[in-house]
Amino acid sequence: MSTERLDAQMAFLMEADKLKQILRATKIADGARYENSGEHSWHIALFALVLGADAPAEVHIDRVIRMLLLHDLVEIDAGDAPIFGDHDAAEMAAKEDAAATRIFGLLPPDQAQEFRAIWDEFEAAETADARFAKSLDRFQPPNQNLASDGGSWAEYDTRYDLFEARVGTKIKRGAPWLWDWLQPRASAWFEARGKR
Amino acid sequence: MSTERLDAQMAFLMEADKLKQILRATKIADGARYENSGEHSWHIALFALVLGADAPAEVHIDRVIRMLLLHDLVEIDAGDAPIFGDHDAAEMAAKEDAAATRIFGLLPPDQAQEFRAIWDEFEAAETADARFAKSLDRFQPPNQNLASDGGSWAEYDTRYDLFEARVGTKIKRGAPWLWDWLQPRASAWFEARGKR
Repeated sequence: MSTERLDAQMAFLMEADKLKQILRATKIADGARYENSGEHSWHIALFALVLGADAPAEVHIDRVIRMLLLHDLVEIDAGDAPIFGDHDAAEMAAKEDAAATRIFGLLPPDQAQEFRAIWDEFEAAETADARFAKSLDRFQPPNQNLASDGGSWAEYDTRYDLFEARVGTKIKRGAPWLWDWLQPRASAWFEARGKR
Repeated sequence: MSTERLDAQMAFLMEADKLKQILRATKIADGARYENSGEHSWHIALFALVLGADAPAEVHIDRVIRMLLLHDLVEIDAGDAPIFGDHDAAEMAAKEDAAATRIFGLLPPDQAQEFRAIWDEFEAAETADARFAKSLDRFQPPNQNLASDGGSWAEYDTRYDLFEARVGTKIKRGAPWLWDWLQPRASAWFEARGKR
């Protein structure tokens, strides 16, 4: 093991620490504060470990977990784009692309290439693993919103239709059984507030 | 997929959210605030993904990552025991054992048994996977301490000998190349402050 290799690995890992300071639009379940992208990444990796046991056979859970551990690192440079907010998708994609180049580029070349490929696969959302990973990334926040009296739904004054379009369709695509479970719960919340 | 099974999985996953509110003795790298055990769990799973590529062949990285995602959940009930603090080890072990029974017990029976076994393996620190996982759990905090002008070392007025006894020996056991990298850096920090 060369010192140079380990120096590069540690430069990446210490840079990654900054993800703990990127705040999301979602609050933690008791509503006390906004969630950061580091703890969010842990939580959805745990979702993958638990819920992945019942995913279709073509989903490889350990690959999904690796994907989820890496998926938000680009936010260190690009920030988090709230799902119910308005942002220029092409501009955001360009920022995230540059962020991936810089951040994964801190690693030794073989790992930089490997991790970048995993992140690109997640972003493209075409493989079974990436589709399931994306579903979990969309499935966790509504559960925290339900637990904290609306969370980001209340803050962004969201209607059910927008929730179903931006969140529901993505969950359904990779994990239909999770959408079946969530949909009536979410629907009831919006219904009770005259938002559906 | 029975609703009962998914209800149990979700009860576990939403209980796990509380780990985001358990504060550790270590600060995040810029020293701005204490680290919580949720983001810590993400960070060391990432350490496993990066540094595990150079671990001995008998270490299975994906198992180590699963272990690290689960390793601190017992703190939801038992709290975090700072490594340089004084606590009754037997009392803490009993608290953590009860916590594991309650928290993993929220899962469907097959997963409760599977996850409990992974946690028990981590705690026993006898297999190659558990030894490597324990090494990473000890290796991450000193790097944050070095980045934040001492962090928990400064707060607990720690001397080098205690650091080597409580932290160094555990890192060396599962990841000697990481200790070789860290030791001179840590030693210099303690030396400069007359603590070695």
